[in-house]
Amino acid sequence: VGMRPTTYEGLAEPYRRLLDRAALAMEKAYAPYTGFCVGAAVLTREGELFAGANVETASYVGVCAEAAALAAAVEQGHYEIMALAVISRSRFYDVTRVAGPCGACRQLINEFAQVTGADIDVICAGTRKDPIVVAKLSALLPLSFGPVDTETDVSRYRR
Amino acid sequence: VGMRPTTYEGLAEPYRRLLDRAALAMEKAYAPYTGFCVGAAVLTREGELFAGANVETASYVGVCAEAAALAAAVEQGHYEIMALAVISRSRFYDVTRVAGPCGACRQLINEFAQVTGADIDVICAGTRKDPIVVAKLSALLPLSFGPVDTETDVSRYRR
Amino acid sequence: VGMRPTTYEGLAEPYRRLLDRAALAMEKAYAPYTGFCVGAAVLTREGELFAGANVETASYVGVCAEAAALAAAVEQGHYEIMALAVISRSRFYDVTRVAGPCGACRQLINEFAQVTGADIDVICAGTRKDPIVVAKLSALLPLSFGPVDTETDVSRYRR
Amino acid sequence: VGMRPTTYEGLAEPYRRLLDRAALAMEKAYAPYTGFCVGAAVLTREGELFAGANVETASYVGVCAEAAALAAAVEQGHYEIMALAVISRSRFYDVTRVAGPCGACRQLINEFAQVTGADIDVICAGTRKDPIVVAKLSALLPLSFGPVDTETDVSRYRR
Repeated sequence: VGMRPTTYEGLAEPYRRLLDRAALAMEKAYAPYTGFCVGAAVLTREGELFAGANVETASYVGVCAEAAALAAAVEQGHYEIMALAVISRSRFYDVTRVAGPCGACRQLINEFAQVTGADIDVICAGTRKDPIVVAKLSALLPLSFGPVDTETDVSRYRR
Repeated sequence: VGMRPTTYEGLAEPYRRLLDRAALAMEKAYAPYTGFCVGAAVLTREGELFAGANVETASYVGVCAEAAALAAAVEQGHYEIMALAVISRSRFYDVTRVAGPCGACRQLINEFAQVTGADIDVICAGTRKDPIVVAKLSALLPLSFGPVDTETDVSRYRR
Repeated sequence: VGMRPTTYEGLAEPYRRLLDRAALAMEKAYAPYTGFCVGAAVLTREGELFAGANVETASYVGVCAEAAALAAAVEQGHYEIMALAVISRSRFYDVTRVAGPCGACRQLINEFAQVTGADIDVICAGTRKDPIVVAKLSALLPLSFGPVDTETDVSRYRR
Repeated sequence: VGMRPTTYEGLAEPYRRLLDRAALAMEKAYAPYTGFCVGAAVLTREGELFAGANVETASYVGVCAEAAALAAAVEQGHYEIMALAVISRSRFYDVTRVAGPCGACRQLINEFAQVTGADIDVICAGTRKDPIVVAKLSALLPLSFGPVDTETDVSRYRR
């Protein structure tokens, strides 16, 4: 429930463009420690795209691609997010098993689902954009802890 | 699927003890910024309990209670985790809506589910230990990204 | 040593522009939990500017402004960073005491100092761009843990 | 200033015990991804020791040894920290170059320096407990961002 395997051709055109944007970002990842390169892109309510790539450090401080893409949207004043695409490859192999965003990124995406007031489509792809899974954020992070649990009103970030 | 609402009395005795241990830890939380106090405890394969409380800082660097409890088990050489309990309260109100661990903590719990080679029961409780939800980690973090996705063998951490 | 108090007028023109860019980003911060808004901007070796604002969530998962700005540069393939400016204000008051980036951000900046092969100027400002301190990254994070400590070669990220 | 190279024999006895405790914890680290094992221990105002080891995950979510040690003290209601020792080794080589804690951990240590109302001695050691550097936290994180910058009173965590 809330997860659907599909193909690149099976994606609606805006989601294909979103995934293509994420794939471009992936090529810029700074991943000298793991060799694991991730790209992500978000689609805002206004139809704009923002992208991000992962950033590693020698310690376990870093920035995930999904976090970078969300932060890029925020920096331009966009807080309402409709969809996020994520794609990855290793320096050593193509990713063939589709996984969703890491837990920390799901927490970040959930925050913006609350702002948007709508579930967010998360498009998860292997390196060759096949296979692909489209999952609802609510399915990726059930029983979520969010703004409502801290009695925080985030509605003023809506347009 | 994978989530079951229950009550304190409805918990098996080891899970009641685990939740009680988490509640004790909660009282020690260092949360001067949010006033949101969280306690957690883990049950290892050998039947030992380890607990943790959340630690905040002036910036967004911190340690979640679940992370602290897992780290306490690791520090004693226990890597196989069967169950984790988490409970919270605000300085200003009792928590009545049950939420699961934040996404980052789910990622950490997932790591040890992979080491253990078994799903982990996550017992989530409101301040008064009612309501309670018992959820499988696999239900809390579907389509997870873990050791297998980076071709990492974690079996040597098993006893 | 490595830290110099100054004024907006005392900054070289490229640093004034960098700080102005950070101040613009600050206005877009997503900070519904702390009300503490931070903006940052980085200057690359090629002379380009990239900016970021902080992003909070209900849990302690977030993205700092400095991290967002560095990630924005990375996403465009810029890994050599010459300077970073950071500015902040609270929703409730102006920041008058100058502080440097949080420790986690210093770790990220240090990573790129190693890539760049040069010390990075960090321009730290209160809300009204006064007072200002210009600090070398090496002064902000002495005895740093970085790529060399994990025997990682990051020179291929140089142009 | 605020940093002093020394030897194991040059340490006061309580600091030798603290470092030994950290070295024990190091052996329990969960580091299947980097093979970089870190142990840390803290000395509280009451003279008790608490230890921690690093915990990695497949994503960049983790717990540093220093964070684990501080969280262990907090879980037992100890918030006033006098000293912290940290030691590391790679699975592949001994660490011979002494580095301080990562930036994120310095932020955490700084928080407790503010609670304690005193500077914290940070004992940094290579694998063979030689060389050793004893550094003041204030020297490791100058121009720090802490409780005072967010107008937060942390004195009630003092005994």
